[in-house]
Amino acid sequence: MSHAESVTMAALLAVDAGGTSTRVVVVDPGGDCRGVGLAGPGNPVSAGWPAAAAAVTEATGKALAAAGATGSEVGAVVVAMAGGGHGGAGRDAEMLGAGLAPLGVTPTPTVESDLLAQYFSGTPVPDGYALVAGTGAAGIRVEDGSVVRTVDGLGWLLGDAGSGFWIGHAVVRSVLAAAEGRGPATALSAPLAVDVGLPDPSTGPAFRARLLELLYAQPPVHLARFAPLAFVAEGDEVADGIVEGAAAALCDTLTAVLSDDVDGPVVLGGSVLLHQSRLRTRVGERLDALGRVVRVHVVADGLLGSAVLALRRSGVVVDDTVFDRVAHSLSGRR
Amino acid sequence: MSHAESVTMAALLAVDAGGTSTRVVVVDPGGDCRGVGLAGPGNPVSAGWPAAAAAVTEATGKALAAAGATGSEVGAVVVAMAGGGHGGAGRDAEMLGAGLAPLGVTPTPTVESDLLAQYFSGTPVPDGYALVAGTGAAGIRVEDGSVVRTVDGLGWLLGDAGSGFWIGHAVVRSVLAAAEGRGPATALSAPLAVDVGLPDPSTGPAFRARLLELLYAQPPVHLARFAPLAFVAEGDEVADGIVEGAAAALCDTLTAVLSDDVDGPVVLGGSVLLHQSRLRTRVGERLDALGRVVRVHVVADGLLGSAVLALRRSGVVVDDTVFDRVAHSLSGRR
Repeated sequence: MSHAESVTMAALLAVDAGGTSTRVVVVDPGGDCRGVGLAGPGNPVSAGWPAAAAAVTEATGKALAAAGATGSEVGAVVVAMAGGGHGGAGRDAEMLGAGLAPLGVTPTPTVESDLLAQYFSGTPVPDGYALVAGTGAAGIRVEDGSVVRTVDGLGWLLGDAGSGFWIGHAVVRSVLAAAEGRGPATALSAPLAVDVGLPDPSTGPAFRARLLELLYAQPPVHLARFAPLAFVAEGDEVADGIVEGAAAALCDTLTAVLSDDVDGPVVLGGSVLLHQSRLRTRVGERLDALGRVVRVHVVADGLLGSAVLALRRSGVVVDDTVFDRVAHSLSGRR
Repeated sequence: MSHAESVTMAALLAVDAGGTSTRVVVVDPGGDCRGVGLAGPGNPVSAGWPAAAAAVTEATGKALAAAGATGSEVGAVVVAMAGGGHGGAGRDAEMLGAGLAPLGVTPTPTVESDLLAQYFSGTPVPDGYALVAGTGAAGIRVEDGSVVRTVDGLGWLLGDAGSGFWIGHAVVRSVLAAAEGRGPATALSAPLAVDVGLPDPSTGPAFRARLLELLYAQPPVHLARFAPLAFVAEGDEVADGIVEGAAAALCDTLTAVLSDDVDGPVVLGGSVLLHQSRLRTRVGERLDALGRVVRVHVVADGLLGSAVLALRRSGVVVDDTVFDRVAHSLSGRR
């Protein structure tokens, strides 16, 4: 479908339902973003389904209002969320659709991979790679606009190597090893003690016992909040080792999805890769060392890519011109 | 106090409150075990305090009945449980004591380390080492009858290297790596699929998604139940690597508590070291390779050691003769 034809189509609704916030944009078929809406966490895995669906509804209401549009103008809905795009998402789509119906939005949503939305936030090229490290971590290979291979993204208990959880977990383990006299003293101990409100890491076994008590009383994923300590303590051998280990793990994940047949760009996303430039630099250097010329894009979230997916799934060819139009009009709306 | 004097003392109550069951023995000051009682899980960390205290009370009632004793005959109570022996256990002792008062048992319990009880289940020598691997894993050094150094025992989230949880976790990660095509195919996949009721591990991504869904729906520590698969799949390179990794991790833990000044025996305990003879053998071979002549004892639980601790804390000198008397009379009561 050409751009000239597409302007007569209905508006599209693109949703990026993330663990920290939910973002929705109303985009017209030509790629102009008309309005954006925000709400709270929309990841059904971490927030639970009722909260996630409610966040999607709330952000959609705000986006429609910002666009000056009604729900009945919406011709298609794409929702990018964790676990999406693997098929069998019929129940998820129904729950999301039920939440949107009161707004007059009638199309059944198409649920897509949040990782694919991150990818298309960085490039319109239909073949390439995304490496995402936020609280979790995963790598994907994209061919012809779809995810053909996923590595890691196994969650905090079973994987997510190099993620915020992984780094925070390593920080705590290093501090415990120092408290046990099993590992070297580290500059991570004092700020961790301050963070959890314990007086003195030098007390060894007593500190160790209190720290364990505190950490087991909270949800395991909360260890991710200690990840920034590894970057703040730059120059400390233990802290630097953790950062280097995360860079190595993330490159291993990306390496595992690489194919000689796909020479597309690499999109880096997720809060940890976005905000920790040192980790991003080390990942970039390791990518260079692989001997492949890669174009690397860094993205803040998956909203732009959700809009690209909504356009693609509606038959719009998203070339560089359309992609730039979506990107520029979206940045003006945020 | 000599044995001749001690026979006029009151009976002692020794409690081994474990994650699977709670064991209590009534022992007289000469070392004769008069009666044993059993109840359900008594580990307050995993079972919660009300259930743990109730199990101690139930097992104590049974032990007193088996011994033909009344609570008022009890002159001292020692309870060995996870987290005990670190001081500051006043609240724990009070809760346990409140549960025993209705039985007429009035002495405030002394709470001791479950690891120390495992140690004294293997030897009366006051200086030595224990390495325990059950659902968790830890090593201790004992000097003059007290724990002077503990390594690991950090729980499933932060440590317990070489434990049942650690092995089960490695089993699941290996199966996931195979399903992702990131790791080698392994004989662990089929039995794991059968165990969780999934049809076919060869379906790759679909199997991976279903397995993740199932595993995240259960408490993380339940991964420990997959540990036996690593031993059943003997000969599989991946499975053997996990067992070897566990042996190495457990030896690292023991190495970290070794002291040149303490040449005492090594007591091996915990369900994994007890039941998996191959792991025990590999740990033994690695201990030999350390170049230290060590006498290794394997123990089934901490009940005998709890009785030894009760005797020691009452001033009884537990020499080889007394130890043998406790051991033989206890084995006749179980």
